[in-house]
Amino acid sequence: MFECVPNVSEGRDASTIDAIAEAIRSTPDVHLLNVHSDPDHNRSVFTYVSDSADAIRDATLRLYDVAIPRVDLRIHHGAHPRVGAVDVVPFVPLETTTMQQCIDVSVATAQQIAERHHIPIYLYEHAARHDERRELPVIRSGGFENFPQKIHDARWVPDFGPAQVHPTAGVSVVGARVPLIAFNIQLGTDRIEVAQACARAVRGISGGLRFVRALPIALASKGLVQVSMNLLDYRRTPLHRAFTLVETEAARFGVTIVSSEIVGLVPAEAMYEVAEWHLRVSGWKKNMILEERIRERRT
Amino acid sequence: MFECVPNVSEGRDASTIDAIAEAIRSTPDVHLLNVHSDPDHNRSVFTYVSDSADAIRDATLRLYDVAIPRVDLRIHHGAHPRVGAVDVVPFVPLETTTMQQCIDVSVATAQQIAERHHIPIYLYEHAARHDERRELPVIRSGGFENFPQKIHDARWVPDFGPAQVHPTAGVSVVGARVPLIAFNIQLGTDRIEVAQACARAVRGISGGLRFVRALPIALASKGLVQVSMNLLDYRRTPLHRAFTLVETEAARFGVTIVSSEIVGLVPAEAMYEVAEWHLRVSGWKKNMILEERIRERRT
Repeated sequence: MFECVPNVSEGRDASTIDAIAEAIRSTPDVHLLNVHSDPDHNRSVFTYVSDSADAIRDATLRLYDVAIPRVDLRIHHGAHPRVGAVDVVPFVPLETTTMQQCIDVSVATAQQIAERHHIPIYLYEHAARHDERRELPVIRSGGFENFPQKIHDARWVPDFGPAQVHPTAGVSVVGARVPLIAFNIQLGTDRIEVAQACARAVRGISGGLRFVRALPIALASKGLVQVSMNLLDYRRTPLHRAFTLVETEAARFGVTIVSSEIVGLVPAEAMYEVAEWHLRVSGWKKNMILEERIRERRT
Repeated sequence: MFECVPNVSEGRDASTIDAIAEAIRSTPDVHLLNVHSDPDHNRSVFTYVSDSADAIRDATLRLYDVAIPRVDLRIHHGAHPRVGAVDVVPFVPLETTTMQQCIDVSVATAQQIAERHHIPIYLYEHAARHDERRELPVIRSGGFENFPQKIHDARWVPDFGPAQVHPTAGVSVVGARVPLIAFNIQLGTDRIEVAQACARAVRGISGGLRFVRALPIALASKGLVQVSMNLLDYRRTPLHRAFTLVETEAARFGVTIVSSEIVGLVPAEAMYEVAEWHLRVSGWKKNMILEERIRERRT
């Protein structure tokens, strides 16, 4: 099974979000599982799956067909960094699908998008063709506004499409990656420096947890700040550890965690891990779950 | 789907435990999911399922055929209360199976056991025919040793079988109930009075949590004490609440929780609840789980 989780730079206009959802939903053999929109981020995340590589590619092409004429980055404002109207398009292998199959479908999709919409495409993560362009934050650094300069650098010639930023749609980052968890923590303060301190403490690059990326984000509509995280390998850096570290760092400012948020969907195993850690279950195994054990016996 | 979770008064002799497991495993259309044995309790819990009422009854009859000649309560010692060699046999409805179907199979099974082995049977929980005999602790009070007196009381005429305790196998409690979670917490002390205080604090009957039953048990082999619990309705009294209450009460004695233990299997939903509570997930729904969402779309 193929999963695709595009991030589109529109989190406010319901008609555009609905039109994109409908385009995915109407693709044969594709199941739209989740739509997560955030007005402060001004961004939506669509999660859909298919057993067919062709179908998951078709749904993604339809998403571009709807989004490109409707999302104009020149007038787009949001708290989340972005370089494209369709910002990033990861394909994720589920069940017995392999990473190579996801790389193949991501490359095929990228090529067709570039041809159809004249958008520069950067292949990332497992689909990357240049080691220094593997990581999303590196590709995205400087944002849409800086990309017209960046693209003239020889190191930033796109993998597909013109060496010129699309005027309204920017560029797109397309690739294949392992499942990640997009997990945000809301802090009971409007002081962005508290979220900054928490993000610095928790993220791998600045000395925190190896498989965590984190950004401080102001949620103007809520009067709160947020630590917006990606957990790149929840088996090695589990949810509860990231949560505890943010909690501890926030406490140093006298600030508590108000709530957290799962963007898109979360694997069952990641939630089991949190529960068994807090309950201190001895000899925990996934097959202590009734439903998992029943499925195991049926297959 | 029918689930059956008999508790047998043997947790030490591997040959008996294996023979019982094999009797279940060899029953056509029955899947043995879990065997949990505890030498201190001197008790084993077998979890098996079937889509067929006849098959789940057959497996249970085979379990009795193997256990009755092998388990002699006259020489049985264990930390867990018991009244029978096969102490308690709950049938549990899963998926689309109804409670009435489980009541029916429990009654049919009980009748055949009584006839075949001349064991007095008490129907309990949803299968109970007397309101005052609905709850297991009431039926089991006094234990095997006291049952020869108890059974002569007019209120304790068995539902099936002779009004005389089986010399080696005692009596059996058979019935139908909702899924429960058997959850034990180990405390870092050998002082039984700490486990007693925690059990009193957490269980509904003495003023604690409505759907928790709890017993203090000494684990001689580990040099620890245990709060042995049944969570009768994990949706209304979740695992994390019972855990926190025991933790708080133990702390009053300067004692911490060493580990916990799931006896048998636990429903996925119960673990999701613990995780989302600790993570403070806003707007939590089960369909935020990737696999649940995929299954939902496939069915």
